[in-house]
Amino acid sequence: MSEFDEAGLIAAAAAYEKALRDDDLAALDLLFAPGARTLRAEGGVAVVGHDEISRFRARRGGAPTRWLRRVHVRWASPTDALTVSETERLDRGRGLQTQLWRRGDDGWRVVAAHVSGAPLTPPLAQVDDAAVWRAGGGPEPLLTGAGTGPLAGVRLAVKDLVAVAGQAVGGGVPRWLEQAPRENASAPVLQTLLDAGAVVAGIAQTDELAFSLMGVNEHYGTPRNTAAPGRVPGGSSSGSAAAVAAGLADLGLGTDTAGSLRVPGSFSALYAWRPTHGVVDASGVLPLAPSFDTVGLLARDAALLADAAGLLLPEELVQRPEALLRSRALLDLADEPTRLAVEAGLTALAVQTGLPVRDLEDDFTAGQAAEWTDAFRTVQAAEAWATDGAFVEANPGALSPSVEARFRAGADLDPGTVARARETVDLTRRRLQTVLRQGFLALPSTATPAPRTDATAAEFEAARGRTLQLSTLASQAGVPALGLPWGRVGELPVGLCLLAPRGADRSLLALLAEVAPPRR
Amino acid sequence: MSEFDEAGLIAAAAAYEKALRDDDLAALDLLFAPGARTLRAEGGVAVVGHDEISRFRARRGGAPTRWLRRVHVRWASPTDALTVSETERLDRGRGLQTQLWRRGDDGWRVVAAHVSGAPLTPPLAQVDDAAVWRAGGGPEPLLTGAGTGPLAGVRLAVKDLVAVAGQAVGGGVPRWLEQAPRENASAPVLQTLLDAGAVVAGIAQTDELAFSLMGVNEHYGTPRNTAAPGRVPGGSSSGSAAAVAAGLADLGLGTDTAGSLRVPGSFSALYAWRPTHGVVDASGVLPLAPSFDTVGLLARDAALLADAAGLLLPEELVQRPEALLRSRALLDLADEPTRLAVEAGLTALAVQTGLPVRDLEDDFTAGQAAEWTDAFRTVQAAEAWATDGAFVEANPGALSPSVEARFRAGADLDPGTVARARETVDLTRRRLQTVLRQGFLALPSTATPAPRTDATAAEFEAARGRTLQLSTLASQAGVPALGLPWGRVGELPVGLCLLAPRGADRSLLALLAEVAPPRR
Repeated sequence: MSEFDEAGLIAAAAAYEKALRDDDLAALDLLFAPGARTLRAEGGVAVVGHDEISRFRARRGGAPTRWLRRVHVRWASPTDALTVSETERLDRGRGLQTQLWRRGDDGWRVVAAHVSGAPLTPPLAQVDDAAVWRAGGGPEPLLTGAGTGPLAGVRLAVKDLVAVAGQAVGGGVPRWLEQAPRENASAPVLQTLLDAGAVVAGIAQTDELAFSLMGVNEHYGTPRNTAAPGRVPGGSSSGSAAAVAAGLADLGLGTDTAGSLRVPGSFSALYAWRPTHGVVDASGVLPLAPSFDTVGLLARDAALLADAAGLLLPEELVQRPEALLRSRALLDLADEPTRLAVEAGLTALAVQTGLPVRDLEDDFTAGQAAEWTDAFRTVQAAEAWATDGAFVEANPGALSPSVEARFRAGADLDPGTVARARETVDLTRRRLQTVLRQGFLALPSTATPAPRTDATAAEFEAARGRTLQLSTLASQAGVPALGLPWGRVGELPVGLCLLAPRGADRSLLALLAEVAPPRR
Repeated sequence: MSEFDEAGLIAAAAAYEKALRDDDLAALDLLFAPGARTLRAEGGVAVVGHDEISRFRARRGGAPTRWLRRVHVRWASPTDALTVSETERLDRGRGLQTQLWRRGDDGWRVVAAHVSGAPLTPPLAQVDDAAVWRAGGGPEPLLTGAGTGPLAGVRLAVKDLVAVAGQAVGGGVPRWLEQAPRENASAPVLQTLLDAGAVVAGIAQTDELAFSLMGVNEHYGTPRNTAAPGRVPGGSSSGSAAAVAAGLADLGLGTDTAGSLRVPGSFSALYAWRPTHGVVDASGVLPLAPSFDTVGLLARDAALLADAAGLLLPEELVQRPEALLRSRALLDLADEPTRLAVEAGLTALAVQTGLPVRDLEDDFTAGQAAEWTDAFRTVQAAEAWATDGAFVEANPGALSPSVEARFRAGADLDPGTVARARETVDLTRRRLQTVLRQGFLALPSTATPAPRTDATAAEFEAARGRTLQLSTLASQAGVPALGLPWGRVGELPVGLCLLAPRGADRSLLALLAEVAPPRR
């Protein structure tokens, strides 16, 4: 146990947020330390003295609604801690709240606070970018839906692996597109969204046959990442992510095998949902490694993501987790700034939901992560070759050399190696399932923020390798994962990822809804 | 010695402010703790990591100029302290800066900071109020000056004790005014200001014959205190203070015997200057107690006050004090919120000037303060009776009962009592002169913020009595005093007062100029 009472501090901060939401003046008074030295500063003025602050609050008549996005904790002593909270406001503005907490006999109390707001974030870039779209993307939808319904008017950026009625599927590879038939019907997952009122804004680019995580496509270019200028958007759902991040679409419909929704979500500041393996109909969608393939969503707006995901899911019992689980080993797989950003996001989630944060008692190790990543890559390569090997063999030069090499690594695997790798994947799956009985597991969506667009192939490969150690955990276990775009490293976004037990997608989305502003 | 290294903290904070003014990036980098956890939040966003913060600063190209007005220090441990600074900006907006400092082997470093600004303060009330003016106060000046000069266009609110050419002096008493001749010439002090371009906006009300500190006048009413609605403006320079606080005038020309400039300055959020006794020509100004009477100024704008005061002073060697002196005993004469506010103001002054704060080694005591106040009141009453006793005797009922009683207390004093009181005053003067060899002494301008206008006579008398313990110290020693309107108790202003050695008025004003925005 640490000498620092983090659990008590988070519980007090959670009580404070609840009291603020409820404008419960008695509770707020109690959570501020008594006495003449207690201080609250806002709007250029510090109000000093517990009772003066209490009078201010009574006059104010409620604080504006806010949602915590990062809570940074800095310990000054075992009984003194500073929290700096970054918040999102109803009007899309941002807020900051700094509090110095002190632990006395009665628990944690605020001894000093500084609150500030910032104006609305600037409107979305709306930069059109040819590298985003393989088809459509113009002012008129490529395909319209039911016209009315819960997703009326929601613009979809459909990854070019998903069948769109009247269009061919291009798979991010020109040679593939040349050979692809025009689809008679949209994939069922897309049709469900269309039936709810959504429209297809366009068919969005993907990394070649979805076998990459960076969002770089040598044939079509790299979609511009407006959330992190000069950086890759992440892939393989690259065009969908870039389109949603730039406001060219509201919802990205994509796939996630090894992280292809969560990685672009992390790099492009989007909410990303990878469903439980098998619960969302993947027919009509190009496969890569069927043991791991899923179809899911990307969105800027958490409430929209939750609404849309709800349409794709079977009925499930919704349960609130008992705790948010933290694995030091998984956090340490990320670079330090990413780890700190993800920890701040996790604390914000805990403070906002009131759920305790528990460190894994029997934590993973870095060695295990290296092992499970190797096993995953082996199985993925074997399945990818089984899926697309014939195309690769028949079309030399159709793929960029690095992606072709990735496919070919699966060509010569001996069955014993693959079988042993599957056993490791199974062990990882069981291990994670045991862990998830205790709560939802939080980890970094990616090991780093988005690399620069001018990174070398080796740098991209290194970034991919480090991130796979984190992202393939959900893939191997088949559990649902939710990427929250709450982390920030300098000006770069980075995601916090939550894993829930198999079939608990609705519980994961319900937790998201607790901390999401109303749909905009 | 305290376990808390306040001196080191203030020195580090001063170095930080200097580096910020100079945009000295290397110094700022050094003052922020190294490492990935150091944090700086502003505009809704926290930047995490020393080097990220450094990059932010390099991009920013300098911070907006600011002047500290209060620095609240809260200790979290002997090596961790929070400072919350309230600042005034060039554009009259306000700023807040919260910093968590940590002391390591290399000294104090910032580990977390939160900076925010607030828009311009609303324009001045400009409420016209008949109780402010005894004459004039309309759109046209009552008397114009040279037209050009360093005070061109500056509007004066002249206390109704000062001769204004063509007007009678009313002294705050209708019966006095009836008997007063029209003045042929303005008092020399006023003429100097007129010659520098100032104009007389009006003749401002005073407490009856200047023998009060609250700003209540039973004949003419209580001028409205726009800086503290519902509260008295303080006196006896009550109308001058109210006019300047409301923006009806720029400069108040008044008198200070026992605090009659510093008290309304404290209650009405104005800079107040009481000069060294005898250096500003008091001819043409009604006396009260000549041993203590001075003529000085009130202003909203510190730079204007310094400029105008400079015109009234003889040439003097300007010297920077070695330290700011703090007397715990004097601070404790104020109520606790006032004390805390004044301490925050003193810390702001120290941080901004880089001067150390030193506690008096051989401090005053509460008993001494009671004694010197009694002595002062005795001498003042004796002199006031000598000055105005004939009028009081000849005009029964001309004064309100409480002021008349105050005069009459001086009527029957036996010479031995007065002589002993003068000895105590002399002792106090010598004691303070010794103290002031070490630096400028800081103390509360008043013991409390302004009382409510509906306070009882007993409450007013109690407030007057407590404040006199503080305010008469300068009066007895004849030393110059400067009231800085930097304290704040809830929404009420309260002043920090600085005392300097006799004849060091220009040094006091030079220190003020160091911490004042350019004249507006």
